[in-house]
Amino acid sequence: MSKGRLEAFSDGVIAIIITIMVLEMKVPHGGVDLEALRPLAGVFVSYVLSYVFIGIYWVNHHHLMHAVERVNGRILWRNLYLLFWLSQVPFTTGWMGENHFAPLPTAVYGIVLLNAAIAYYLLVLAILAHHGKDSRVATALGRDFKGKISVLIYVVAVPMAFVNRWVAGALYVLVALIWFVPDRRIERVFGKG
Amino acid sequence: MSKGRLEAFSDGVIAIIITIMVLEMKVPHGGVDLEALRPLAGVFVSYVLSYVFIGIYWVNHHHLMHAVERVNGRILWRNLYLLFWLSQVPFTTGWMGENHFAPLPTAVYGIVLLNAAIAYYLLVLAILAHHGKDSRVATALGRDFKGKISVLIYVVAVPMAFVNRWVAGALYVLVALIWFVPDRRIERVFGKG
Amino acid sequence: MSKGRLEAFSDGVIAIIITIMVLEMKVPHGGVDLEALRPLAGVFVSYVLSYVFIGIYWVNHHHLMHAVERVNGRILWRNLYLLFWLSQVPFTTGWMGENHFAPLPTAVYGIVLLNAAIAYYLLVLAILAHHGKDSRVATALGRDFKGKISVLIYVVAVPMAFVNRWVAGALYVLVALIWFVPDRRIERVFGKG
Amino acid sequence: MSKGRLEAFSDGVIAIIITIMVLEMKVPHGGVDLEALRPLAGVFVSYVLSYVFIGIYWVNHHHLMHAVERVNGRILWRNLYLLFWLSQVPFTTGWMGENHFAPLPTAVYGIVLLNAAIAYYLLVLAILAHHGKDSRVATALGRDFKGKISVLIYVVAVPMAFVNRWVAGALYVLVALIWFVPDRRIERVFGKG
Repeated sequence: MSKGRLEAFSDGVIAIIITIMVLEMKVPHGGVDLEALRPLAGVFVSYVLSYVFIGIYWVNHHHLMHAVERVNGRILWRNLYLLFWLSQVPFTTGWMGENHFAPLPTAVYGIVLLNAAIAYYLLVLAILAHHGKDSRVATALGRDFKGKISVLIYVVAVPMAFVNRWVAGALYVLVALIWFVPDRRIERVFGKG
Repeated sequence: MSKGRLEAFSDGVIAIIITIMVLEMKVPHGGVDLEALRPLAGVFVSYVLSYVFIGIYWVNHHHLMHAVERVNGRILWRNLYLLFWLSQVPFTTGWMGENHFAPLPTAVYGIVLLNAAIAYYLLVLAILAHHGKDSRVATALGRDFKGKISVLIYVVAVPMAFVNRWVAGALYVLVALIWFVPDRRIERVFGKG
Repeated sequence: MSKGRLEAFSDGVIAIIITIMVLEMKVPHGGVDLEALRPLAGVFVSYVLSYVFIGIYWVNHHHLMHAVERVNGRILWRNLYLLFWLSQVPFTTGWMGENHFAPLPTAVYGIVLLNAAIAYYLLVLAILAHHGKDSRVATALGRDFKGKISVLIYVVAVPMAFVNRWVAGALYVLVALIWFVPDRRIERVFGKG
Repeated sequence: MSKGRLEAFSDGVIAIIITIMVLEMKVPHGGVDLEALRPLAGVFVSYVLSYVFIGIYWVNHHHLMHAVERVNGRILWRNLYLLFWLSQVPFTTGWMGENHFAPLPTAVYGIVLLNAAIAYYLLVLAILAHHGKDSRVATALGRDFKGKISVLIYVVAVPMAFVNRWVAGALYVLVALIWFVPDRRIERVFGKG
């Protein structure tokens, strides 16, 4: 089975998630001064963060599928499972942003990101099982240092949201940075990975 | 006529349906505790069920089109007819979820699923008529045990919604399981199909 | 310049229009009996009609682009102009459906369809100018009987909406039927076209 | 890394932006006369302007990617950055249109267009850096007269929104015309560029 439609479908779903999320920022009816924009500031920040997260998943999905040669039913479903958790991001982004990173919304946001990270890992495992340990995709993935450290940071950040919301927020930003910054620099900081 | 655009268009429509459906879960404005999430619980369950159903249709459509070699006008229109019924799923999902599986919404949900199943069957017939009984797609489809049993279960589940809503709900879940669980196991339970 | 992205972009826009339009039918909050569905009946009818119209445009666009060999800037823009008018269909569909085919909404609906038909014709002209009169696409299009009769019927239907709304509605359905029913039968009724 | 998915994803995002933007024009509930359409007039004008802007970006992106041979991580992210600013267009379009080109919304609209123009320029730079100065894409881009003059006009238009809103609006229309009108004529007016 070819990977073409899995890529096309995933592109469609991720394009909708990332675009609709930003479109959720609603026109402030009636106000035409800076005061009217103020309530949007917190929401804007949380949307930018989520835009970067969804962007990271798209770029990684792009790289991952580039190395994939064929797909099976299990891979299709694990991909759908990943897309399900990504589709929960806009909802939790809005809830967290509207309530100024209140403890529960911030924790729920982390739980969604954690589940997405686990779903991505399960997708990778299904791809490796289908291609074999010596395949091109196995070599391309390597030891997946970033994936494992992300899960670890989320596990710390979720309970931290109830202690200090800004520490939890900073940990989410840290995960985004780990993926965003090119690999060489990360490795210099955290060791060879 | 090539099948490329039929696949691309169907991917687009199904991606929009499955994503928008989940995005329909609205941010609980104002509340930041678990109490604010409680009304969403029933809605969440119905959305997960519908996500799996739409996912099943996408995976099946993927498999079906994989074996298709060419399309004609009739196939394009039967595909549009299937997409029409799939696009009714989010509406009925929300209605059923918000009202805790009340009889009429639960029955309407089943009617939409039944129509989608019939539309899929009509699409398969148009494809078989265009390819011939000895074609690769005819062999790949086989006797379509799952399609027939699904229609049968929906026909039972719709009136059952007025007797006992949970039995109707359980029958919908049963259909999802029949498609979700790999074929071998199903066949062991229901006979050789 | 290849036609691949024009097809992909058009598929995306038409998929969004046709899907979002149907998603516009909103869950009747609170009601769980047939009474709650009644206000949706008129809306449902108008959405089905528009679904068929958008479906016809997609199928025709599919056939048209199939015969096209290359595109230029003018074709890209005329295609965007067609998509603009198609994107006005959901808005006018809702307005007409909610108000039980009231004169002005029904006339505006016809004006949008008329503009879409003209835009399609302009797109065809740009394609013919780019490919030459003896090209495959020119042969495939032929004398475009359906396109011309559609424009004529819309021109009659729009003022008719202020005289008798049901006549206007019936004329819209007639246009849909002209495109929907396979060509042979149409030609038998209206002459050789 | 191939450019196929970058094109498909961008097509998806731009298709969603351009379509949802027009779908934002809401049905005037209750009114069925011309009076009911009047409040939509200003909004309609601003949406048409933004439709043309997004259309211009899609056509340019189409041309740009046509000449691109391969992509890297930096190009993927700069493309996402461009899409982010384009996704801000619907929000500011609605705000500006609803408030009859009031100073602040009109200035914010210009700031979004300015950022999109800069993002496009950064994308072009990343592509040139990846392909080299003698590549086909470098030749195709030439001196990018239109890109530079657009940025200049936006820089003038944004503060002008606080002096005279119609001058700012006219400058936005001017940028659209510069891109819309075929190159030859532009060059005759502004010099060889």
